[in-house]
Amino acid sequence: MRRTSTTLADGRELIYFDDSEPFVSGAATRRLDDPRPLPDRFTPIVGDDGVALPIESPELRRDALTGDWIPMAASRMNRTFLPPADSNPLAPAKPGAAYSDGEIPAEDYDVVVFENRFPSLLTVPGTVDEVALTDGEALFPVRPANGRCEVICFSADSTASLASVSPQRMRTIIEAWADRTAELGARPGIEQVFCFENRGKEIGVTLHHPHGQIYAFPYLTPRTLAMLAQARDHHARTGRLLGRDVLDAELRSDKRIVLETEHWVAYVPFAARWPVEVHLAPRRDVPDLPALTDAERADLATAYLELLRLLDRFFVGPDGEAIPLPYIAGWHQAPVREGRELSRLHLEVFSVLRAPNKLKYLAGVESGMAAWISDTTPERIAARLQEVAR
Amino acid sequence: MRRTSTTLADGRELIYFDDSEPFVSGAATRRLDDPRPLPDRFTPIVGDDGVALPIESPELRRDALTGDWIPMAASRMNRTFLPPADSNPLAPAKPGAAYSDGEIPAEDYDVVVFENRFPSLLTVPGTVDEVALTDGEALFPVRPANGRCEVICFSADSTASLASVSPQRMRTIIEAWADRTAELGARPGIEQVFCFENRGKEIGVTLHHPHGQIYAFPYLTPRTLAMLAQARDHHARTGRLLGRDVLDAELRSDKRIVLETEHWVAYVPFAARWPVEVHLAPRRDVPDLPALTDAERADLATAYLELLRLLDRFFVGPDGEAIPLPYIAGWHQAPVREGRELSRLHLEVFSVLRAPNKLKYLAGVESGMAAWISDTTPERIAARLQEVAR
Repeated sequence: MRRTSTTLADGRELIYFDDSEPFVSGAATRRLDDPRPLPDRFTPIVGDDGVALPIESPELRRDALTGDWIPMAASRMNRTFLPPADSNPLAPAKPGAAYSDGEIPAEDYDVVVFENRFPSLLTVPGTVDEVALTDGEALFPVRPANGRCEVICFSADSTASLASVSPQRMRTIIEAWADRTAELGARPGIEQVFCFENRGKEIGVTLHHPHGQIYAFPYLTPRTLAMLAQARDHHARTGRLLGRDVLDAELRSDKRIVLETEHWVAYVPFAARWPVEVHLAPRRDVPDLPALTDAERADLATAYLELLRLLDRFFVGPDGEAIPLPYIAGWHQAPVREGRELSRLHLEVFSVLRAPNKLKYLAGVESGMAAWISDTTPERIAARLQEVAR
Repeated sequence: MRRTSTTLADGRELIYFDDSEPFVSGAATRRLDDPRPLPDRFTPIVGDDGVALPIESPELRRDALTGDWIPMAASRMNRTFLPPADSNPLAPAKPGAAYSDGEIPAEDYDVVVFENRFPSLLTVPGTVDEVALTDGEALFPVRPANGRCEVICFSADSTASLASVSPQRMRTIIEAWADRTAELGARPGIEQVFCFENRGKEIGVTLHHPHGQIYAFPYLTPRTLAMLAQARDHHARTGRLLGRDVLDAELRSDKRIVLETEHWVAYVPFAARWPVEVHLAPRRDVPDLPALTDAERADLATAYLELLRLLDRFFVGPDGEAIPLPYIAGWHQAPVREGRELSRLHLEVFSVLRAPNKLKYLAGVESGMAAWISDTTPERIAARLQEVAR
């Protein structure tokens, strides 16, 4: 694998991860400059009156009722150049074209990661990462939404999906995730790195090019805080790692195991809350993706693909055709600082699809009270996945 | 107002709340018996082999990773009678018809509450409310999903909406909510009563008849637990009630106030997380709806309607027409036991609509990490509501 970092016209970083020689992108073949007329994103825009508008950071506000930090992503960004509505900004540049209307200047690529053009978390140079009180109110704290939002393209082929890439490509993607986790986690103020994929129009994905996202949060997310609290309780009570004991209990129970490989186990968790939900965990206790060995990464590449293929056979249409599952897949990794020793890596893949053309909506109970209700049982989900695995 | 309780054919409770004399439903005019061939819901079904299948309670499983209790609502229920797909089960019975295909035996009603026919929480008589360990695993605790799910119809008119009812009707609805909160909260094992309304196909509502729901939970929901933790911290630090201080800070800041009446204040909270979000709080510290005075209830009836009417003017279509807002509205009330002294009543109304025909989807960041990101600012939401209020 080769890693090549470059910079887009507006100053954003873009990193190519090439599978193997001959490398298709990076130094050898890429067009060195992003030809788009994008102003540097941190250069203030000067108005007609000659006054420069300062670049505003997106901000984080603390919700006093829940304690959650909420990024407010509505701050002014340099949106002077927008690609045509029907273009695919994740496609490679057209060969020989003097001008690219997409984000990626290379004419081909394997895996590419770049900073999101319209991020909800953005570290603006010179910003002081301090809490201020809005209107002098102790209950209205605000601070810059320092952090980073990245996009990861899984293939240059717009018609591909993550489930259809080769094991070698999947391995490159795993390397890219591990790279981003380590590098973003080393940045000042970052508390947590979240690598995830949203797939399907049912969850609002409008861009069908196979891609995922990576968020570097300057705070611990509510879900991670809740998981740390449980892990801490469990450790205080038993001296043991919660994630380890959950995996062992699932293996002993042996009712909801979906996939086992040398280094990985996929199972429907005992208290699955979604219509389809699977967790994929390593057999060895590891905190995050960078901590995986070569052997674990290689095994993960094939296990991940096999899991996605099982999920794509979960629902069948009226003519017996498989229905690609809309899903959210997200890596739960140890935070950068707090609670690393309590955390254990695992992937969660879940879907809002209850049946072909039937969605689980997150209405009053879920969105109002954060209380989930399952309309099925984990054993039924597991039985279906075990059936399609045969 | 008159309250009349009756029982449906399958044993479920149904309660009429009539606005004023002459009462349209209840003892005087209702058809006393539900004519449907529904078996009692707690009578075991005897199979062809003569074996009676025991009634299974829906169960609660504890998610070890988060500590959340998850109801599993897939247990067998008596589904022998189903109304035709195109019928409206919330419509009043047809005058003179010998047979009703809906849930409500009365030929007219003002407000009616009844137990949901397919509940995710159900107290089965004789069930012992104890935690058991599945497969003997300490991390797999399970207990019956004791509790109750009720439906509340706001009007017998299927074309009405909550925003269109009269203040008198709204007052009856408030009385019904307060009645259910007090009565359900007095039942053994109930920890929290949640009155809410889901409106709009955008959040999955398939039944357009104006109605809401009431859940009596046998556990504290994650959102309520998070709010209690913050309220407890705030009280330990300041000796004061968090909800009171939040309201006072919003009033002092005076930037996001949407509506003020003698007894109520509506505001967009400082850290609003939804594209449209308003909280409605009483000026006086009260824990829940039953604690409201007559004057506060009367004032709430008009304030609630005014707020809904503002929200229905928030978005405007291409021809200037108002777009009825899809929304979730939920009452945050003090739990039955724990933390009552830390809790303060308020309503939260919010929407997933970002713009006409544009939804906020709850994808990886929200559904995976419970982390919300706002695409707007609370001040913009408030400014729009202040504009349409003029």
